[in-house]
Amino acid sequence: MDVFNSISEIRQSRWADPTLSWGLVPTMGYLHQGHLSLVQKARTENDRVMATIFVNPTQFAEGEDLSSYPRSLKRDLDLLKEAGCDVVFVPQDSEIYPDGFQTAVSVNVITKQLEGASRPTHFGGVATVVTKLFNIAQPTNAYFGQKDAQQTIVLKQLVEDLNFNLNLVICPTVREADGLAMSSRNAYLSKDERNQAHVLFQALTEGKNLILKGEKNAAEVRHLMKKLIEQQPLAKIDYVSVANGRSLEELETIEDGEVLLSTAVYFGNTRLIDNIPLSL
Amino acid sequence: MDVFNSISEIRQSRWADPTLSWGLVPTMGYLHQGHLSLVQKARTENDRVMATIFVNPTQFAEGEDLSSYPRSLKRDLDLLKEAGCDVVFVPQDSEIYPDGFQTAVSVNVITKQLEGASRPTHFGGVATVVTKLFNIAQPTNAYFGQKDAQQTIVLKQLVEDLNFNLNLVICPTVREADGLAMSSRNAYLSKDERNQAHVLFQALTEGKNLILKGEKNAAEVRHLMKKLIEQQPLAKIDYVSVANGRSLEELETIEDGEVLLSTAVYFGNTRLIDNIPLSL
Repeated sequence: MDVFNSISEIRQSRWADPTLSWGLVPTMGYLHQGHLSLVQKARTENDRVMATIFVNPTQFAEGEDLSSYPRSLKRDLDLLKEAGCDVVFVPQDSEIYPDGFQTAVSVNVITKQLEGASRPTHFGGVATVVTKLFNIAQPTNAYFGQKDAQQTIVLKQLVEDLNFNLNLVICPTVREADGLAMSSRNAYLSKDERNQAHVLFQALTEGKNLILKGEKNAAEVRHLMKKLIEQQPLAKIDYVSVANGRSLEELETIEDGEVLLSTAVYFGNTRLIDNIPLSL
Repeated sequence: MDVFNSISEIRQSRWADPTLSWGLVPTMGYLHQGHLSLVQKARTENDRVMATIFVNPTQFAEGEDLSSYPRSLKRDLDLLKEAGCDVVFVPQDSEIYPDGFQTAVSVNVITKQLEGASRPTHFGGVATVVTKLFNIAQPTNAYFGQKDAQQTIVLKQLVEDLNFNLNLVICPTVREADGLAMSSRNAYLSKDERNQAHVLFQALTEGKNLILKGEKNAAEVRHLMKKLIEQQPLAKIDYVSVANGRSLEELETIEDGEVLLSTAVYFGNTRLIDNIPLSL
C-alpha cells in the first residue's frame, strides 16, 4: 500500500494505467468499521482503491471540534492496508489550501435544513473539499456512508450539477451492538453518555415502526421520537426530523415516496447524528 | 466531425479510447478567427479536439446582451470542421442547467476588480459553467484567448484551487487590420462605431510604449490612455486600468513583474474590452 502526501504523487499513481477503475473512500481518519465497510465495498467493485485521510478545516465552524477531532494515523494505515486499500492520500493542510486559495463550491438549496441549519458553513466546506478530492483522485466510484444522510444528498446534487464523471455509492450505516451508529466522535463520550447514546437509533426505529403501522401525521412521529430521546437525562436534542427524503423539507403528512427520519443530539459537548431512510 | 447535444454522447466519445489526449475549446459561438486560432493550436497539441458552443445565460446579468448575443450555428460548424475539430458539443440550456440545479462555483478575490467590478455576477457564471465543461469534456488541455485577460487569470486560479487535472493554454489575441481585437460583439457596431473602435488597442499600445520608455507613474499611463480614447466622440470609457498582472490590483508605481494594461469602452450599447499584458 502506497501512502502519498502530494497531489502529484496521487496523479502519477492514478494515471499509471488509465484503463483501470478506481474507487475513492474520503475520510477524516480515526477509522472505524463504518469506514472500513466502504473500503471493503470499494475493493469488490474497482481495480484499485484509494482512501484519503484529511481533517478538513473548512467544514468545521468556529467553536466546533476541529482541534480535538481524534487522530490515529498509524492505526488508520494498518486498518486500510488490512482492508485492501492500494493508495492512501494524507495531505497537509497546505497541500489542499495553499496560500492564495480563494475558490468555493456551494450547493445552495438542500443545504439549508437539518445539519445545514445547525452548521451553516459546514456543507460549503464539504462541497469544496470533495470537489477537490474528486479532481485529485478522479475516481470511477466514490464511497460515502448513509450515516451522514444529508451529506449523501448534497453530494448527489453536487455530482449531478457539476457533472462529475463518477458514480456515488452510498453504503449502509454500521452500528454497535446496541444500535449506536459508528462515528469517530463516539470516542468523546463518557461511559454514562455512551450508555444513553443508543437512544438515537432507538427513537428512529420507533418512529419508523409507527410510520410502517400507518401513521400519516409527521408531528406524531416527531413527538414520539422526542419523547424517547428526552427520557435519557444526558441527551439534549438539536433536532428531530421527519422530512421528504429528496428535498429534506419537513413533512406534515407522510405520503408514499422517500422519507428521511433523522436526529441530532448533544451529549455534553459531543454532537451525534443518525438517520433512517424509508421508501414508502 | 461529430456534433452532440447530450453529455452522455460527449462522455462516450471522450472515453472511447482513454489513452488519447483531448484539447477543449469552449466558445459561445459566432466564431471568428480568434476562436479558430484556439482550435488550430489545440489541433497541433492533442490527439482529439473538442469545441463547445453554449451561450451561457448565468454569465450575463439582467439588462446585458444575452437575448441579442449573435448566433450562427451552421456557419460555426463549417468553420470548426475546416479548422480540424473532431467533436462539437452544442447543448440546450436544459442540458447544462436542468430543473433543480443549485450549485455554484466562485473565485472570490481576483474577481472583484475590472470586469468583476462592472459585471459582479459574471465570473461566478463563468467559473460554474467552465467547471461543468471541464468535468463533461475532461480535457488534457483547455484553450482560452488572452482577449479576456481577467477570465484567463480567474480560470488559472480555478484550475489551481479545485485541482483540475488539465493544462490551461492561453493564446494571443487575434486582431483586425486596424488593431481591433476580434470579438463576436464587434458585430453590434455601426459603421461609425467600428471606425472608432480601434482606439482601444491604440490607447493600450501607447500606454505600453510609455511604460517601455521608462514611465513609472501608473496614473500618467492611465491618463494618456484615457485622453486617447476620449478623442473618439462615440467612445464612453467604463474603465482604464494599469494593474498588477497577478492580483489585478491597480498600480501606483510600475515595478518589474507582470503588468496588465486593460480597458473597457462602450460604443452605444456595445461594450468592448481589450488588454496588453507586459512582463517587465
